[in-house]
Amino acid sequence: MQASKPVVGVDLGGTKMLAAVVDSRGSILSEVKRATKSNGSAEKIVKRLAGAVQRAIEASGVPREDILAVGVGAPAPVDPQTGFIHDATNVPSLSRFPLGERLAEMLALPVFVDNDVNAGTVGEHALGAGRGTSDMVGIFVGTGTGGGVILDGRLRHGFRNSAGEVGHMVVGFRGLAGEPTCGCGRPGCLEAYGSRTAIEREIRDALADGRKSCVPDLLEANGKKRITSGILAKALDAGDGVVEEAIDRATEYLAILVASIVNLLDPEMIVIGGGVAEALGERLVEPIRRAAPQWYLKKEGAEKIRIVLAELGDYAGVLGAATIARRAMEEGRGSS
Amino acid sequence: MQASKPVVGVDLGGTKMLAAVVDSRGSILSEVKRATKSNGSAEKIVKRLAGAVQRAIEASGVPREDILAVGVGAPAPVDPQTGFIHDATNVPSLSRFPLGERLAEMLALPVFVDNDVNAGTVGEHALGAGRGTSDMVGIFVGTGTGGGVILDGRLRHGFRNSAGEVGHMVVGFRGLAGEPTCGCGRPGCLEAYGSRTAIEREIRDALADGRKSCVPDLLEANGKKRITSGILAKALDAGDGVVEEAIDRATEYLAILVASIVNLLDPEMIVIGGGVAEALGERLVEPIRRAAPQWYLKKEGAEKIRIVLAELGDYAGVLGAATIARRAMEEGRGSS
Repeated sequence: MQASKPVVGVDLGGTKMLAAVVDSRGSILSEVKRATKSNGSAEKIVKRLAGAVQRAIEASGVPREDILAVGVGAPAPVDPQTGFIHDATNVPSLSRFPLGERLAEMLALPVFVDNDVNAGTVGEHALGAGRGTSDMVGIFVGTGTGGGVILDGRLRHGFRNSAGEVGHMVVGFRGLAGEPTCGCGRPGCLEAYGSRTAIEREIRDALADGRKSCVPDLLEANGKKRITSGILAKALDAGDGVVEEAIDRATEYLAILVASIVNLLDPEMIVIGGGVAEALGERLVEPIRRAAPQWYLKKEGAEKIRIVLAELGDYAGVLGAATIARRAMEEGRGSS
Repeated sequence: MQASKPVVGVDLGGTKMLAAVVDSRGSILSEVKRATKSNGSAEKIVKRLAGAVQRAIEASGVPREDILAVGVGAPAPVDPQTGFIHDATNVPSLSRFPLGERLAEMLALPVFVDNDVNAGTVGEHALGAGRGTSDMVGIFVGTGTGGGVILDGRLRHGFRNSAGEVGHMVVGFRGLAGEPTCGCGRPGCLEAYGSRTAIEREIRDALADGRKSCVPDLLEANGKKRITSGILAKALDAGDGVVEEAIDRATEYLAILVASIVNLLDPEMIVIGGGVAEALGERLVEPIRRAAPQWYLKKEGAEKIRIVLAELGDYAGVLGAATIARRAMEEGRGSS
């Protein structure tokens, strides 16, 4: 039976790529991790990608002819019908590159590409925190903040394949000079308040104001320049007031984002994942869960809308990419 | 043929009710308007409603047995499966009242109830500005601001039947004392910036600050106490600077709302209707159309997302309610 064959899921990141052979129940049979070497040419990156897929298949012991298809989550806007990559700021050489098509040629397998956050959302929905829900929105809080929208059990791409950009929903526009600006250049976006980058900015502002914090020591002790999610977790463990305040502010805006999504779509579940969520766990999610319902217009049944931590961590992307490939084959959609 | 039979659409408002017999092509065969007398008991209101439906049927010349069903748009949160009304702030006596069930008993016809803004959205989608689109969001700017979400051609109700509350998406949270508060009691909601009420507040603040405006004269000349949408239109006709600024501010926030919706759902079309849109037309919609794309994360194809004025005016509600009833019958859904 076609449907019971394993698929390969790939999470292509700016620094590393992870390929995994996934069986029909969502179990990982084998996995291969490699550096992306994202400053190489697109052709070189695709070759590394094809190599990682090949090695994952070999390591799984599954005969090559039994592999149903390959799914890829890419760190860029993608046309999911063709696997064409648009502007890829994290892996510039992949910009305007037919990733799906080239990988399908190299592997002689059907390939389906979507963006990494959409893949992560599908992963959490199919095999993680969102199992069994019909309508679910994923919010992934990392260096930036992205998301994905599942309605009636299906990922929504939108008219221009750009649905799910929750980080650029405007939650805090003030129309005032000096308000925080998002990476996209605009003031008021969620990402300007609720992302690792925003939290880092808040902490650095406090340090510049002479506030006491253990963050400088943690950075030095861990040999880091950026205030990573791991550093944030350690500072919270140490009861650092500056970091607590910065996280409070981020969760306040993330709660507002959740409420805006609830007021528009009234979904069954919001799953919160990404690097910051993984490092902080309930210390990020619990304040959001507590604050968001205050902003729901309809209070009745507010507690039925579950706001939960993602479950799959780093594996959301590969498992989601695998699920995307499997479903596309089941539905007979054309591959790259 | 069942599907070709006429239906009755009803728009039940806080002050008036409109019932219309609508044929299978969406043409209105007859209509009856009555005062709601919303301070009466629920039973009295339902009797008036049933009477209006009866008279509309008689006036249409359609034999009663040829009427397929009745659809009602009610100014309150509704359970569309049962026709049960939740808190009805505009018509308090209808709160926690089984409107659909009672009306179905009185009329001996299948009755389907939804909220008025959802009905308006369905009307514009099926027979107005949104004809032929797959994904469309309706934004109705009036005393408050409401909306509805159509995806894959179907109205979305959400997990608790409260989807589409665009007026309570948070666009301008400042976390500062003294920021405008929404009717829902929260700061930062769209409705606190982009509604007739918000525009009126801005104008009154300017007048209190001693700004010159023709609004006081217009209010007196028209015997109005509230700054109605009609007064706003007249003041703009007269080139009133205070009103222009207030409308500018409202359209700035409405553009941000549109962009937030686009960044989340990437729909094909946004339809802007409601009393303010009807009175101001392109003077409300054009600035939104111009500003919104600046906030889209994806710029490519931004112009393909159409932002348009609603077409059906006061008839969006009845035509939408009629469409809801017709579709429910076609799909064999249970009525009240």
